[in-house]
Order: sequence, then C-alpha cells, then structure tokens
Amino acid sequence: VSEAFSQRLHRRIEALDTRVCLGIDPRPSEHPWTHPDAHAGDPARIARAVAAYARTILDATHDLIACVKPQSAFFEAMGIPGVIALAQVIADAKERGIPVIVDAKRGDIGTTAEAYASAYLGDGVWGGDALTVNAYLGLDTLEPFIASAERSGRGLFVLVKTSNPGSGGLQDLQVHGGGMVHEHLSAALTERAAGLPRDAADYTCLGAVVGATYPEALARARSSMPHSILLVPGYGAQGATAADVALAFDKAGQGAVVNASRSLTYASADDHPGEAARKATIAMRDALNRALERRSSP
Amino acid sequence: VSEAFSQRLHRRIEALDTRVCLGIDPRPSEHPWTHPDAHAGDPARIARAVAAYARTILDATHDLIACVKPQSAFFEAMGIPGVIALAQVIADAKERGIPVIVDAKRGDIGTTAEAYASAYLGDGVWGGDALTVNAYLGLDTLEPFIASAERSGRGLFVLVKTSNPGSGGLQDLQVHGGGMVHEHLSAALTERAAGLPRDAADYTCLGAVVGATYPEALARARSSMPHSILLVPGYGAQGATAADVALAFDKAGQGAVVNASRSLTYASADDHPGEAARKATIAMRDALNRALERRSSP
Repeated sequence: VSEAFSQRLHRRIEALDTRVCLGIDPRPSEHPWTHPDAHAGDPARIARAVAAYARTILDATHDLIACVKPQSAFFEAMGIPGVIALAQVIADAKERGIPVIVDAKRGDIGTTAEAYASAYLGDGVWGGDALTVNAYLGLDTLEPFIASAERSGRGLFVLVKTSNPGSGGLQDLQVHGGGMVHEHLSAALTERAAGLPRDAADYTCLGAVVGATYPEALARARSSMPHSILLVPGYGAQGATAADVALAFDKAGQGAVVNASRSLTYASADDHPGEAARKATIAMRDALNRALERRSSP
Repeated sequence: VSEAFSQRLHRRIEALDTRVCLGIDPRPSEHPWTHPDAHAGDPARIARAVAAYARTILDATHDLIACVKPQSAFFEAMGIPGVIALAQVIADAKERGIPVIVDAKRGDIGTTAEAYASAYLGDGVWGGDALTVNAYLGLDTLEPFIASAERSGRGLFVLVKTSNPGSGGLQDLQVHGGGMVHEHLSAALTERAAGLPRDAADYTCLGAVVGATYPEALARARSSMPHSILLVPGYGAQGATAADVALAFDKAGQGAVVNASRSLTYASADDHPGEAARKATIAMRDALNRALERRSSP
C-alpha cells in the first residue's frame, strides 16, 4: 500500500499553500490551438492537440494547484482518440507529481463496480489517484471502489450534493423522520468512514462531492463528514464565492479542494493560454487563501 | 428524426415474439477463446477475441433477442483496446439490425451531460440506440439526454430501482409525506414523459431501469410509468423468476425487456458457445412468454 491519497493531497496543499483543483474539461472549439478547423476536423489530430494544450496548462500551473481533475465526459465525447488523450493527460499529470482525480462519476453493482474500479483506480491507462462515484445504486455498490482505493492508497469522492440548479430534486427530498436524502447519504458515508483507516489528520479514502453553490449544505457537510475530504465544484462560473467555498475547509485549512475548469484553462483565446491560466490560477489560489484567513481572524 | 426507439423495439418484440435483452458483460477469463492465457496476456489480442466472441453470440442469437445491452464497465476495464471492442460490438449489433442499449449509467450536469449524450446517443463509435442514465444529480441533468434522444429517435433508461441487495439504502428512503425516493423519481419521470411525444402504444423515449429482484416495486413501476419502457435486470443469476419479471409488461405483453448476461453468453465453456447461448436464450424467451400467458389466462 502506498501513502494514502488524502495524506499526499494534504502534504501538497501545505507545501504549495494552494487549494485549487484544476478542472480539465476540453472543449476543442474554445481555443484556436485545438479548434477543429485548425486540424481539418480530424478527430485524432484534434485529440492530440487537446492533450498538448492540457500539457501546456499543466506546465504553467503545476506549482499552483493541489490536484487536477480531468472530466471524462469531454474526452469520451471525442471517441477513441479522446480516451487516448485522457490517458495522456493522466500520465502527464502524474509525471509532474500532480494528484489526479478522474471525474467519471461511475457507479454500478457488484462485479460491474469492480470493473469500473479496476479501470479508474487501477494501474491501467485511466488509473488516477482518485475517482468520483455516484452512490444512487446503494452503499453496497461503493465497496468495490473502497476496496480498490484502500489496496493502493487511492481515493474516492462520492456525489453527495451537486452544484447544479436542479440538484435538490432527489438530493433534497425530506426523509420521513428528519433530514434530506443527501444528508442521509453523508451520514451513511461517515458511518462507513469510521471503519476505515485514517491518516494523520483523521481523513480516510472516502471523500465527498459537495457543491459550493449550496453554502449551507457545504457547511453542514464539513461538520458532519469529519473523515471525508470534500471536492467542491461551483466556484466562479457557477456563482459560488471564495467566502462560500471557505466553508469546506477544516480549522487547519485542510480537508477540501475547490475546482475550477473553464475559467482557468480557457482564461484567454490568445497564443499564451499557459500564461493566462497561470494568472487566473494565482488569482483563485489567493482568493481562496484570503477567504480562509478572513474566516479565522477574530 | 428516425422512427422512435420504443416503436422499433416493440416492432421487433412483436415480430420475433421475444422479450429477451442479451447482456454482454465480457469477462475474458470466462471462456477459453478469450482467456488471457490464450492470447499471451496481450490486451489488444484479448479485446479482439472478446469482440469476436460477442459476434459469435450475436450470430447465434440475433433472431431470439429483442435487443442487446453491452455493459461498458467491462470494456472500459480492458483499457483502450476494450473501448475499441465496445465500438465493434455496437457496430456488429447494428449491422444485424439489433437495437443496442449501451449500459454505461452516465450522468452529470449541464454541458457535461451534453458531452455524454453526444458520446452515447450520437453517431460516434459508441452511439447506441439507447443509454442507461443515473438521475441522482437531478431531473434537470436528464434534459440533454432527452434532447439528444428526441432528436435522433433514440431512448433512455433512467435508473429507478436497481436489482442489487443494497439498492434500498437511498432508493427506498421514505419521503416525508409519503412514498419512497425511487417512487418520487418515477413520478417525476412520468410527469416529464407527459410532455414528450408518444408512439402508437403510448410510450416515450424516457424508459426506466427497475430490478426484477423487487417484484412489488416492479409491479408498481409498471402501473405508475405508463409511458416508460422498462429495462429489467435481475432475472436468473440474481434470483428473479419469470413470474416476477412478467409484472414488467403491459396488457399487450409489451413495454419491457428482460436482461440476462452471463447465463446466456457464458452458457458453456466448450467450443460451441454460440450453440449454448442459442439454447439458453430460447429457454429464457420461452419461459418469459409462458409466464406472460399464465398471467393473462383466467
């Protein structure tokens, strides 16, 4: 077993004083370097350009980010060349020592869940350091993922409360006897985490996704899930502020990472996307750190 | 817009008098033809053998099945060669005129959902006739899938009540004011389906997955979701009987397909897997039809 994912992530957050998760959601038309027109519409050339573009961004931001989160959907939408590019992005990030959260939101039952765990928490081409997982199918379906994560020092982020406007439809249904559906899920995750090995800061491999667009839910999640690192989407483009996302962190300023994608990776359509990404990432890193300082000052 | 998926599926169910959905969940070690040892452990050779094996099964059963359901997880677990094999299986099924349900259980928000819809309900290599979808993120996240399905006469199957032992953990939580979480979801789907175009038999593109291992839930789903075709897992290996799955069908014996995977595709480890699959599929087809007849006799 390698060092736990949570520990590696925290060491990096502390060393670089950054809580930014760089989301990589490739939309080829968003930048001239990857635009289909620049590659005669050839899917293989576009996908290679996407991987090269992502590498440029990683090189420009590697010392400013806690981790990187490639969104599998955008790679899958590019077909076979796209999923080859995803493998390349994961390899490039690992080569640079950046922890990789594969955002694939997988979830299925029994041996099918084992197959997903082996694809995304194993040593294959899409093996990241952590994976996002959907638990609607039941807590039993998390077990193969937990087993994989434990075996190899990797992590999971279970979708608890998502950042979209309609996330309440199922997640906020009031349960008979009290609490919303997503609160029941977070309670069940906390119970499960109690049986898992903890790192020095008391965190386990079992993290959670909680959107910053619902700050009250985020604050509750932070206090009710003391053993789960939170992956927090919704900052910036989706409307959440630095003060909102500050609620995700524990007293030591640890226990969470905040994702931003397009605002960092497509900060400029000019010929210096790396410089633009670096500038935008510094601004986000500093905004998060200032919000944390404000929170802790009397 | 092509002919609606529901209509094509029903036409085929009627013409062939079969309600069997052939699940393709490749486990290379399960048969000598695909076993890693027979291919020097070479992932590309194993994946090609898996695609060839699936083609053998399709050739042997094409006139006995309503549709085919490749399980993406098992292909993804084989890496790049695996997802190429998935594309091959989808192409082979389409060439044989068999409707393809890609069982990938995707789900995400906004433009990310659009990316998944484009990957699995578009004209790319993984474009099937229908896709399984996870709605925990909210009903709004289904819209990109519905839009894609409507545009091209394809279908969706939303996970409502899954067949695994722990499916109740979230799905069966009792909601304040009455009903379980999965019943609230099915009610919301029915409401959404009311606004969608219907085929001659009153079905829409918006189907649902309901496990036969919970026969009461299946019977309720059939009556509460009159515009949704049901995709029913859990038959055979997971313990549900033909009498259980008969509850999934409407009075005309339509409106559902019943999946079986391993019991059909790995019916024998000998050199005639096609013949064994044919025999097992005939037995399942007939068992389902007999159960439907028993149900409708006085």
